[in-house]
Amino acid sequence: MIAQSVETLDGWYALHMLYNMDWHAWSTVDDEKKQRALAELFDLIEKWEQVETAKEGSHYLWNVTGHKGDFSFFILRPELNQLNEEENRFRQLEIFTYLTPVHSYVSVIELGTYSGMPKTQAAMKRTNQHLYPELPKDEYICFYPMNKVRSGEINWYTLSYEKRQELMKEHGMIGRKYAGKIKQFITGSIGFDDHEWGVTLFANDPLEFKKIIYEMRFSEASSVYSDFPYFIVGTSLNDRVRLTSYFQGK
Amino acid sequence: MIAQSVETLDGWYALHMLYNMDWHAWSTVDDEKKQRALAELFDLIEKWEQVETAKEGSHYLWNVTGHKGDFSFFILRPELNQLNEEENRFRQLEIFTYLTPVHSYVSVIELGTYSGMPKTQAAMKRTNQHLYPELPKDEYICFYPMNKVRSGEINWYTLSYEKRQELMKEHGMIGRKYAGKIKQFITGSIGFDDHEWGVTLFANDPLEFKKIIYEMRFSEASSVYSDFPYFIVGTSLNDRVRLTSYFQGK
Amino acid sequence: MIAQSVETLDGWYALHMLYNMDWHAWSTVDDEKKQRALAELFDLIEKWEQVETAKEGSHYLWNVTGHKGDFSFFILRPELNQLNEEENRFRQLEIFTYLTPVHSYVSVIELGTYSGMPKTQAAMKRTNQHLYPELPKDEYICFYPMNKVRSGEINWYTLSYEKRQELMKEHGMIGRKYAGKIKQFITGSIGFDDHEWGVTLFANDPLEFKKIIYEMRFSEASSVYSDFPYFIVGTSLNDRVRLTSYFQGK
Amino acid sequence: MIAQSVETLDGWYALHMLYNMDWHAWSTVDDEKKQRALAELFDLIEKWEQVETAKEGSHYLWNVTGHKGDFSFFILRPELNQLNEEENRFRQLEIFTYLTPVHSYVSVIELGTYSGMPKTQAAMKRTNQHLYPELPKDEYICFYPMNKVRSGEINWYTLSYEKRQELMKEHGMIGRKYAGKIKQFITGSIGFDDHEWGVTLFANDPLEFKKIIYEMRFSEASSVYSDFPYFIVGTSLNDRVRLTSYFQGK
Amino acid sequence: MIAQSVETLDGWYALHMLYNMDWHAWSTVDDEKKQRALAELFDLIEKWEQVETAKEGSHYLWNVTGHKGDFSFFILRPELNQLNEEENRFRQLEIFTYLTPVHSYVSVIELGTYSGMPKTQAAMKRTNQHLYPELPKDEYICFYPMNKVRSGEINWYTLSYEKRQELMKEHGMIGRKYAGKIKQFITGSIGFDDHEWGVTLFANDPLEFKKIIYEMRFSEASSVYSDFPYFIVGTSLNDRVRLTSYFQGK
Repeated sequence: MIAQSVETLDGWYALHMLYNMDWHAWSTVDDEKKQRALAELFDLIEKWEQVETAKEGSHYLWNVTGHKGDFSFFILRPELNQLNEEENRFRQLEIFTYLTPVHSYVSVIELGTYSGMPKTQAAMKRTNQHLYPELPKDEYICFYPMNKVRSGEINWYTLSYEKRQELMKEHGMIGRKYAGKIKQFITGSIGFDDHEWGVTLFANDPLEFKKIIYEMRFSEASSVYSDFPYFIVGTSLNDRVRLTSYFQGK
Repeated sequence: MIAQSVETLDGWYALHMLYNMDWHAWSTVDDEKKQRALAELFDLIEKWEQVETAKEGSHYLWNVTGHKGDFSFFILRPELNQLNEEENRFRQLEIFTYLTPVHSYVSVIELGTYSGMPKTQAAMKRTNQHLYPELPKDEYICFYPMNKVRSGEINWYTLSYEKRQELMKEHGMIGRKYAGKIKQFITGSIGFDDHEWGVTLFANDPLEFKKIIYEMRFSEASSVYSDFPYFIVGTSLNDRVRLTSYFQGK
Repeated sequence: MIAQSVETLDGWYALHMLYNMDWHAWSTVDDEKKQRALAELFDLIEKWEQVETAKEGSHYLWNVTGHKGDFSFFILRPELNQLNEEENRFRQLEIFTYLTPVHSYVSVIELGTYSGMPKTQAAMKRTNQHLYPELPKDEYICFYPMNKVRSGEINWYTLSYEKRQELMKEHGMIGRKYAGKIKQFITGSIGFDDHEWGVTLFANDPLEFKKIIYEMRFSEASSVYSDFPYFIVGTSLNDRVRLTSYFQGK
Repeated sequence: MIAQSVETLDGWYALHMLYNMDWHAWSTVDDEKKQRALAELFDLIEKWEQVETAKEGSHYLWNVTGHKGDFSFFILRPELNQLNEEENRFRQLEIFTYLTPVHSYVSVIELGTYSGMPKTQAAMKRTNQHLYPELPKDEYICFYPMNKVRSGEINWYTLSYEKRQELMKEHGMIGRKYAGKIKQFITGSIGFDDHEWGVTLFANDPLEFKKIIYEMRFSEASSVYSDFPYFIVGTSLNDRVRLTSYFQGK
Repeated sequence: MIAQSVETLDGWYALHMLYNMDWHAWSTVDDEKKQRALAELFDLIEKWEQVETAKEGSHYLWNVTGHKGDFSFFILRPELNQLNEEENRFRQLEIFTYLTPVHSYVSVIELGTYSGMPKTQAAMKRTNQHLYPELPKDEYICFYPMNKVRSGEINWYTLSYEKRQELMKEHGMIGRKYAGKIKQFITGSIGFDDHEWGVTLFANDPLEFKKIIYEMRFSEASSVYSDFPYFIVGTSLNDRVRLTSYFQGK
């Protein structure tokens, strides 16, 4: 038996990279060398900002809260091999001498089409803005992967297309209530990483992360059919002054 | 189908940080340098105590029992980014040269409202004391995360509001018996960390931790609907003399 | 619904600590320094032996079989913070420079009361000997944690008190057959560590470990209602000569 | 009860090896030494290419996207001990000083026979090309292990031969749609590694990986009967210029 | 309820030890020192060979395929503490400076008696040869642990003795077909290590490992009632010339 699959619209490829900083070693570096290393990092970020301005990609720099990582970036590019290129460029920086990759997630911006394909030109434009977005530089970021449940009687993938459509609609209704408070990016990771989707949220009030996810947990699409392996939260380092102070510790 | 969600009252953001100490390296440090490092640590703790006195946050320092960590702190602050700030301030200490983060938990003080919203002024005051508390400095601390079960037929999130309310009430009755013996802080972590809630208990007799959790395990909210991934226990280092002796090993 | 919980009798707090030895670094230490380090270790052990003689605690030193650890101790003390104290005392030893904690288990000696509370003076005395024991110094030790199953229809904690009592009795009957061959210590770890109970067995013939656990696995309390995450086995290092030869490698 | 098993045709043994590069240490190596190390690596690759030309094996070099690894190779050889030989040869290279194995997968190229044994000479030839293939040098590679579900009522291995045959056929129909876009290699790993099969896909457009696996997930063989522990994706390093630039970081 | 347990015949204790080699450090050792280290290793192996000749134990040295380990040994001894002794002897070798234990498995050679106890003298002799064997020095080794399922309705340990006997018989029929191709050693590890049994297979054609395990997976004892956490495969290093070349890399 084959259930009807759903078409997806796919945009830019996405890479979340989390690094641990060897603060002990870094603290022994003299100020001049530190500043050279930061200047070099800023040069790379400036190139990323030019890419963003040219609408050929986007990025968000952040400081992971807690022990799961220190410095992190979330980067979008048109091609998957450009993610490798940016990762490889990053590891050639002087400051990378003090950084170790500890986690990552590979995915691609995705829009499901349960609610229909974009038909009007306005809808097409909105869709394109979502597939090829400029990531907000809000104060907070929240990332989590998600799987649809396939366990005994409860199996998302054997539900009819109509049932899944209905559940997604119901689920989406909750999301709308948070418009303006939260910006959400869904990325597909089947074939790319360990879980089926990634969800990246941005907000200026992090309590909204908890509110939306908790409220959604009571909708069938989540309560019965979704599995959430882990959550990571952090604060923006997109501001040059704050990034400097993060690394210089002053 | 969407079950009725429950409103929460949310207070200060919470961070549990566990560090391992490199006792081998620390043991080679000369006494004068050790004392300078401790004095610097005490300066930070003094600032934290001033924050606590000003009722703008709170904290608890502890020594983890067993191999899961050495030194740990549990800190509360009004904003999530202040947790990052304290974490970053802490890693700039000289003593941090010998510490490595090994575990953490990000959450926010939370009160469910199954038993109703506070209505009287007295109730409002009690609620505020719970949302923005001064953490006790009891001899023992116990921390554990908790998830509500969503597995096949057994699913907390598809129960009716009334059923959940009833189970929470029943569960809460057990808790009351331990009033005066145990101080309990529930923190919500959906969207912030890997599990749904954190529970932090304080007591001067650690046997009470086992007694309350074991007794609760027989109530349906726990026995059928809760999952407890791990438990961590430790002893207070809030006393300056004991903290000194902990690090100086004398 | 709340099932009737069971009262427990609780004795001394228990800590299993497993360390890895950096044999490479240790092998470069000159003989004199090695002997000083061992003498210092023996001083601590002698203090522990005095505590044991005074019936204010007990301990067992062992060598873990396989890669899960090298040197290990299992220690009992009246208060939980005394476990931290001994752990902290141990890490101040010179030999600790070559040891790294790799596993631990925190619990408290526990006696369930399904078979009734001790009533006669003789029963009280036997109970006290079990709650505040002198650990045997048998050749072999076996440690494993245990959880009672809470999974769908099969849930230990929703069984009636009588049913649990019956299953425990049945289970206990098997245990009796091994009297004289195996000494068993049950420790409760709800609220203290990741699993619900710890079981520590001592024997001079390790085959008895396998025999009793395998035979018990066919009793309903085990087969249906128990989960065993891992087992660790090892050999006694309580003899000073053997301990010396263990560390000196001669 | 024994269900009828299925015969397999088995070809070359397969090893996926993933290494982490110590970029920090490598960056301190002087250019001449780096070039000697690369020249030596190229010598080994040239030998591998000669083996490929002689149709006595095949290989694919790649750069893992994200933190799961840096440099990786997938190698095929007629005998399993030749995989050990190549692994041992590789670790004798100068460049291996900077590489650490972090993951691997051992398997053997396998063709199931649910759709019948090859009967015509043309079919035999096609089969042989699949069992002893020259791996494509496409831009992208995707690797993932797979298990058939054995959980309660849902058990692949207790299904009748006919039912399994039907499900595999249905599943295979989806695969055909991707002919020309994706090259797929199934390797059996029962008895060799932690999961039952490995799947290695090659494509020039990595979106096809997501499309085929997502579409297949709605077929019963996948949705109900397959479990996918993780996915790894990467980009080709088979081109000497790109490989040089990967290691020289220019 | 207690199901009838099964008696076992138990032979020699077994230890699988897997080590990682620090090839980087080893490569800096000068030839003379390397040869001294190998000579010392050979001395130990010679002692082990004498034990084997005296029929007081047995062993098999191997090179793990893939990243799960480098050098490994599987050793049998009459007493469990002799396994610790050999492990401790091994770690005193010069070459151990470059080795780190990464995995192990502790168990004891076991024969179930579902097919009856040996009654004739010939049967007794065969049994003894199995309980106290001389391990073959075949080219390939395959090791995997195994658990019997205890999950909801499906529970090996609540089956009747007769049902288990029947399933084991059926299962054993498949094994017989591989006589001469595969030598199988079952070791019991309840109470000794994390899983219930270990299975160690030897063959000169490793495809037989996959064939037997895959065929057996369709028998009820495996398909419904067995769980296989992982598999490790490797090649023989019992030949002195090959062992030398393994470590000298020539």
